[in-house]
Amino acid sequence: MDELAGYRGRAFDLVRTAGASIGDRVVLTRDGEQVEGLLMPRTSGADDTHLVLKLGTGYNVGVRIDESTRIRVVGTGARPTLSRAPKPASTKGLPSVTIFSTGGTIASRVDYRTGAVEPALTAEDLYSFVPELASEADVTAKILYSIFSENLTPTHWKETAESVSQEIRSGVDGVVIAQGTDALGYSAAALSFALQKPPIPVVFVAAQRSSDRPSSDAASNLIGAVSVAARAPFAGVYVVMHEWVSDETLLVHKGTKVRKCHTSRRDAFKSIGTAPLARFRVESKKLEILEKDYLARSSTREVICKPDFDDHAALVKFHPALNPGIIDWYAEKGYRGLILEGTGLGHVSVSCFPSLARAVERGMFLGMTSQCLWGRVDMNVYSTGIDLQKIGVTPLEDMLPETALVKLMWVLGQSQDRAEIARMMRSNLAGEISPRRPEGIEDEKLH
Amino acid sequence: MDELAGYRGRAFDLVRTAGASIGDRVVLTRDGEQVEGLLMPRTSGADDTHLVLKLGTGYNVGVRIDESTRIRVVGTGARPTLSRAPKPASTKGLPSVTIFSTGGTIASRVDYRTGAVEPALTAEDLYSFVPELASEADVTAKILYSIFSENLTPTHWKETAESVSQEIRSGVDGVVIAQGTDALGYSAAALSFALQKPPIPVVFVAAQRSSDRPSSDAASNLIGAVSVAARAPFAGVYVVMHEWVSDETLLVHKGTKVRKCHTSRRDAFKSIGTAPLARFRVESKKLEILEKDYLARSSTREVICKPDFDDHAALVKFHPALNPGIIDWYAEKGYRGLILEGTGLGHVSVSCFPSLARAVERGMFLGMTSQCLWGRVDMNVYSTGIDLQKIGVTPLEDMLPETALVKLMWVLGQSQDRAEIARMMRSNLAGEISPRRPEGIEDEKLH
Repeated sequence: MDELAGYRGRAFDLVRTAGASIGDRVVLTRDGEQVEGLLMPRTSGADDTHLVLKLGTGYNVGVRIDESTRIRVVGTGARPTLSRAPKPASTKGLPSVTIFSTGGTIASRVDYRTGAVEPALTAEDLYSFVPELASEADVTAKILYSIFSENLTPTHWKETAESVSQEIRSGVDGVVIAQGTDALGYSAAALSFALQKPPIPVVFVAAQRSSDRPSSDAASNLIGAVSVAARAPFAGVYVVMHEWVSDETLLVHKGTKVRKCHTSRRDAFKSIGTAPLARFRVESKKLEILEKDYLARSSTREVICKPDFDDHAALVKFHPALNPGIIDWYAEKGYRGLILEGTGLGHVSVSCFPSLARAVERGMFLGMTSQCLWGRVDMNVYSTGIDLQKIGVTPLEDMLPETALVKLMWVLGQSQDRAEIARMMRSNLAGEISPRRPEGIEDEKLH
Repeated sequence: MDELAGYRGRAFDLVRTAGASIGDRVVLTRDGEQVEGLLMPRTSGADDTHLVLKLGTGYNVGVRIDESTRIRVVGTGARPTLSRAPKPASTKGLPSVTIFSTGGTIASRVDYRTGAVEPALTAEDLYSFVPELASEADVTAKILYSIFSENLTPTHWKETAESVSQEIRSGVDGVVIAQGTDALGYSAAALSFALQKPPIPVVFVAAQRSSDRPSSDAASNLIGAVSVAARAPFAGVYVVMHEWVSDETLLVHKGTKVRKCHTSRRDAFKSIGTAPLARFRVESKKLEILEKDYLARSSTREVICKPDFDDHAALVKFHPALNPGIIDWYAEKGYRGLILEGTGLGHVSVSCFPSLARAVERGMFLGMTSQCLWGRVDMNVYSTGIDLQKIGVTPLEDMLPETALVKLMWVLGQSQDRAEIARMMRSNLAGEISPRRPEGIEDEKLH
């Protein structure tokens, strides 16, 4: 890494002339305004009209420069180092947390020489990368996979559920699963169904920005996940990620109600149609419970693991002119169920009705969700919904389409009985269906 | 409609004992607190523990009642009437607006005897339903269809574009298209591509709640849409819907950047990854421009209409264990292009790669969008994205998946040339691609 990594053109000249280095505390002045912060590196290919500063608030801001901009070094900074530190002895007596790594940037270290990202294999690596972990938990690191999350399949969900169950039975106080962000919501939903009332928290965590970037969320997310796994009063499957673009607070999302809603922002993960369970304050390590109704942590180390999934289920997103033949194709391929991502309250075009009826005749389960994502399907309002129910399509309330798909794969792995499959799909098994609010006042404030 | 429509049990008793009727101004008292508002009807099947009041702010609130709740009538209200009024003579000289009805609840009237929803066929119907329209525009009402919007196809888009073009050429000052909400975003995108730089506003409008419900957004949305069509300084294709659950403000969304994001809320439509163009204040009829960079209204009545779509394009939403065979199926069925709704920055599993490569070999266009919905695909960050580009998948920036599909159908209707199709898909033709912000500071505040 060059001393002025990523800076070029006008920005490079400005920084070089001031004698500033990456990590230095600098003051920028333009038009009488000034900003103070630590000079951060930029990624290659960046423009030459901004400097990036880390402010006291933890924000990295891009500061536009022009010919009137002046820069002054007010303090010398330290370059980040990645030397390996031995595991501190002081973690004995702390809650025990196992961190499973499945891939992704969160539990990885960047080799500054080659730029390659390699998994953080050991607890020592993790303590070295995030020294704060040593005061939170006695960490054991285990590698399950090193896979981009878009390549994870129901087979991986099964193996992960079994590994987590084994860890629970061996007495650990909390489990963290580090994964890529892309399919994090799908995996969290999968373990929410496969692990029946676990006695401890099982926390999925990821990073949107790798740890070599000035704006990385890897360290703060990992601290939060480990702290929640070690000390939270609740049990169950959750996702812990940034609440906002600053490093100050994280949110604890329920595993069946969370969705990646931005390609790159650190606050990409949102609870949909429900409040997050808790907020974690990174600086104070305080956990604020936002929803009182949770499964409490228990002192037992028993868990019922039902890890089987059947991948003969698929998600079909409806759109204008959708070819109904794909429904027949899935039926002919032996698929046992489909989740439809319909429009609005749960609709597809009438041109799909004959194919849907044939699928039901073959014994397939058809469930309806909404591509709106927010809100609840209601198939009793319009004739389209009423007709679809007559055909045999089951409304899935406010289940996220992605969660409904994972649940269907899991339900098909549990039962061969059509009536039982439909009953399980309609039941709230792991928080995937929120209670209905009083009719007619869906979105108004209740006095 | 019964005098206490929808009320039952405890709520019915409370209202009857007080001698209150629907529409009366009442004051509710409980535990020393009081609320005043107009008593609204409830839909059948409502619970018996809430009354619904319309407050002075325009909000309908559900007020929870218990045994200590008291109700007092402070004013007698008027029942809504739906008598037909003649078209007022005073609209001569106002801007001319044509309202096309394609279906949906927005431009319909409810028969209180049968409960049936029938289209508002004439300008007289519309003036009677929404008397405020008479001071906004000289309205002509035309029926195109009476179709649930989930049944609209590219053929309807073509016919609608041609009808709108004809209306523009005949000299009208603005066009409103009333449609069901379900596929509103798809239709608005379609006309955004088919109508090349129209000289006037073409405004899609809909209602989430039908006009027989106390919380209906039909009247306020229609007033806003007609007013924007008649008087806005900008031209182009837009969607006008509620900003929030109150009737106070509406937003004007760009036709290629808007999405239905809630199944039932009146503020379901959101601009994704861009600011709405304007805000309309219902009470004052004031239009606040939020984005200065728009196509200005012009005094010409010329428009280039390119109404052809090819529906041999489909949207495939990726999910774990997606069967790559569906990509081959589309290729074998003669499809000319697919929009992939990938994970994160624009990824699908490696198991899809061979099918994608075969599709490219057959000459199909493959475009990548993100199921995150917010943010921009970037296929240069991970090896998955780089490999997908090598196969021939085109990253579609921050285009919404639904808009990308409509655009692909339109582009395929314009050209048979592979290179030109790819070039058009990568170009910003109708505001569907937002400019990139400076690299490395995507989501931080710019100073």
